[in-house]
Amino acid sequence: MAQAKISPLAPVGGFPNLPEIAGVQFSSVAAGVKYKGRRDVMLAALAPGSVVAGVFTKSSTRSAAVLDCQEKIGGPQDGGAAFLVNSGNANAFTGSAGQMSVSALSAGVADLLEINSGRVFTASTGVIGEPLAHDTIIAKLSELKAGLSDGGITNAASAIMTTDTFPKGSGAKLSINGAPVKIAGFAKGSGMIAPDMATMLAYVFTDADIARPVLQAMLAKAADITFNCISVDTDTSTSDTLMLAATGQSGADAITDINSPEGVAFYDALHGVLLDLAHQVVRDGEGATKFIEVRVTGAASDADARMVARSVADSPLVKTAVAGEDPNWGRVVMAVGKSGAAANRDTLTIRFGDILVAENGWVAPGYSEQAGVDYMKQDSLIIGVDLGVGDAGGVAWTCDLTHGYIEINADYRS
Amino acid sequence: MAQAKISPLAPVGGFPNLPEIAGVQFSSVAAGVKYKGRRDVMLAALAPGSVVAGVFTKSSTRSAAVLDCQEKIGGPQDGGAAFLVNSGNANAFTGSAGQMSVSALSAGVADLLEINSGRVFTASTGVIGEPLAHDTIIAKLSELKAGLSDGGITNAASAIMTTDTFPKGSGAKLSINGAPVKIAGFAKGSGMIAPDMATMLAYVFTDADIARPVLQAMLAKAADITFNCISVDTDTSTSDTLMLAATGQSGADAITDINSPEGVAFYDALHGVLLDLAHQVVRDGEGATKFIEVRVTGAASDADARMVARSVADSPLVKTAVAGEDPNWGRVVMAVGKSGAAANRDTLTIRFGDILVAENGWVAPGYSEQAGVDYMKQDSLIIGVDLGVGDAGGVAWTCDLTHGYIEINADYRS
Repeated sequence: MAQAKISPLAPVGGFPNLPEIAGVQFSSVAAGVKYKGRRDVMLAALAPGSVVAGVFTKSSTRSAAVLDCQEKIGGPQDGGAAFLVNSGNANAFTGSAGQMSVSALSAGVADLLEINSGRVFTASTGVIGEPLAHDTIIAKLSELKAGLSDGGITNAASAIMTTDTFPKGSGAKLSINGAPVKIAGFAKGSGMIAPDMATMLAYVFTDADIARPVLQAMLAKAADITFNCISVDTDTSTSDTLMLAATGQSGADAITDINSPEGVAFYDALHGVLLDLAHQVVRDGEGATKFIEVRVTGAASDADARMVARSVADSPLVKTAVAGEDPNWGRVVMAVGKSGAAANRDTLTIRFGDILVAENGWVAPGYSEQAGVDYMKQDSLIIGVDLGVGDAGGVAWTCDLTHGYIEINADYRS
Repeated sequence: MAQAKISPLAPVGGFPNLPEIAGVQFSSVAAGVKYKGRRDVMLAALAPGSVVAGVFTKSSTRSAAVLDCQEKIGGPQDGGAAFLVNSGNANAFTGSAGQMSVSALSAGVADLLEINSGRVFTASTGVIGEPLAHDTIIAKLSELKAGLSDGGITNAASAIMTTDTFPKGSGAKLSINGAPVKIAGFAKGSGMIAPDMATMLAYVFTDADIARPVLQAMLAKAADITFNCISVDTDTSTSDTLMLAATGQSGADAITDINSPEGVAFYDALHGVLLDLAHQVVRDGEGATKFIEVRVTGAASDADARMVARSVADSPLVKTAVAGEDPNWGRVVMAVGKSGAAANRDTLTIRFGDILVAENGWVAPGYSEQAGVDYMKQDSLIIGVDLGVGDAGGVAWTCDLTHGYIEINADYRS
C-alpha cells in the first residue's frame, strides 16, 4: 500500500504538544507485523493504582482482543496495568488461534511488567481474517520495556495507525479545587467508521483520581455524543475500542460523583478531548476533502433527531454532492425522507450554514443557487435540518465520498 | 450531463421483444422537460375495464405524484385509465406548486382521453426541488394522443430513463386453462436505489382478467421479494412507483383468488417479470461493473436473514472490494457483525459461489486465496453467508461501488 499524502483536513500545526500524565509511560517499536519500516506496536504502562474504563464495538463478529478486554474490564483494579496495541492485523475472525494470540500477548506483557495478566488490555487493527503472528510482537517486548518513557505518546499514536494519514492526539488541563489535572489521548481511524462504536481505537489517560464506576459512566456518556456520532462509510469495525485510564497521581481531590462540581469539570474536559479526537477521525476519513456537520433540530424525539442526522450523514448521494461542491439540497430532502423519523414535508427547513435553503415544502424565496455554490466551496460545512415537529435535536459528523475512498478500498489488501 | 456508455452488465441482445397487450397503447414524445433531443414523456392508455394496482415509496418526503397516486389507487375502477410519466424533473419537494402540476397533468390527460381524472396516474423522475414546467408537457398532449399505438412500449421505456444507460423491459406468456395470457413491463432506475421501494419507476401490463384486490396482493407480494431486495446505494427515491394494470382482454378465465391454480400460475409469471426488471435496475446501477447476489441461510428468522443480506449488500467496503476484484472476505464478516442480526462467529460460514471461504470462526482449511481471486474476476458473483443459528433465509442483490458512481453523482445536476 502506497503511503497516502496527509489529509487536506488534518489539523494545522500537526500533532499537539500533549501534557505528560504522571503514572503513564509509552513505548513503541517496529515489529513488522505487516508494515515494514514503521512503528506498528505500542505499549502503555500504567502505575499501580490506575483504574481503567472501556467502551467497545457491538459487532457480533468482534475481535478476540475486544472479547478479552470486555471480560477483563470489570475485574479487580489491583496493581499496574497495560495497553498493548498492534496495527497491520486485526486478529478478528481468527477463531481459537486468535484467542491464543491474545492470551500469549497478555501473558507476555504481564511477565514483562510484573502485573496481573487480567490487567493487560490488548487491541489489534488491520486486516480481518488473517492469523496474527504474535511471536513477532513477543520478540519485541524487551525492547518495548526498555523504551518506556513519559514522553513517548506521539510515537505511540503513530504506531497504531493503519490507513490513517496523520496521528490524532488531543489533551486538556483543568483544575480540581485548585490542583492541576491533565488529560492526554490519541486515536486512530480512517475507514470502517460508523456508530457504534465509531472509534476504531482510542486511548485516553488522566492523572485524576476517579472511582471506576464514575470513570466508566463518564466515558460511556461522552462516547455516545462524540465517537458514536461520527461516520465515514457506515461500516462498523470489529475492533473498535476506547479505553480511558486514570492514574490518580495528580494529587487533586478524588472524584466520586459524576454530578459533583469536580465531576462536571472533569467530564467537560474529557468530552472536549473525545470530541476533538472524533472529529480528527472524520477529518482523516478515507478520501475525505470536506468535513460535514449535520445538525438536526425540531425533531419529535432525540432518537428521531439522531436517525435523521445519521441518514443525511450516511447518504452516498449527499456525500458525493458535497464532494462535487454541488448544493444539491434535494438529496438532503431525500435522506430526511428515508430516515424513518417523523417528518413533514411542509414544516421542513434546510440550511447550508446560515443560508436558508428550503422551507415550507419548497426552496426558500430568498435562496440563490450561487449562494449555495459559494458555500459548498468551504472545506468545513454545516447542513442544518429543522423538522418543525418538536423540540429535540441531534448531530452527526461525516466527510464527503470521493474517488479517494474508492482508490483506498478497492485495493487495500494487495 | 454527458451520455454514459451502456453498462457492461446490460443484458446481451438489448431490449426484449415484448408481447403486445390487448387494451394498452403507448406513446412518447420529446417535450424538453430538462433533457434536449430525447423522449422524456410517455403515456400509456388503458382500455375501459382495466384494473390498476400500485406500490409506492415509503419516504416521508415523497413526491406530489406519489401522494396523488396513493390517493387514487383505491378508487373506483370505472372507464379507461392512463399512466403519464416524465423524466428530467421529480416534482418532489415542490410544495403546493407540485400538487398543482399533478392536478393540471391529470386533468389534461383526462380531457384528452375522455376518462375520469381519478384514473390518471402520473409520475415524475429526475432532479428534486425544482418546479416542474408542466405546461411543456401539456403542450405535447395532442401529439402524445396521436402517437398512441400498440407497439410503442420500447420508446416508452426509453422516455422514462434518467441516468439509466439502457431501457429495461421484461415480458412473459402463460396459459390460463388453455387461453393465452401475456405480461409486458418496463422499469427505470440506476441510482438512489434502496428498499423500500427500490423501484424508481416500473410499469407492468397484462391482458389477464384479475380482480383488483387480488392484483394488488400479487403485486405487493412479488415486489417484496424482488424490487424490495435490491440496492444500489442505500438511498431511497422520493418517487418510487410500481404500477400493474390488468386489461382483462385476454379472454382467459378471470382470476379471483391468489391461491387458485390460475392465481399461482399468473403470480409465478409476474414474479419472474418483476425479478428480471429488478435485476436489470441493479445491472444498470450507477458505475456498476459487477452484479452481486448476497444469499443468506441458517438465520434465526426471515427478518434476520434479510438484515444480514442487506448489511452485506449495502457495505461500501464489501462493494469496493468487489470493484477491486479483491476476495476480502473479512469485510463480509464485518458486515455480518454490524447487521444487528443474531450471529455467532464460530458457526458462520462464508462462500464465494461454490467456494468454501470461511467456517468455524476462521478461514476454511481448503480455501486458497488464488481461488478467491479467480472467482472475483467474474462479472456476476454470489456471496453466500450461512449463519448456522437457524433455518431462515433471505437474499439481496446489489452492484459494486466504483469510480463511476462518484463521477456520476459528484456532478449530476450541472
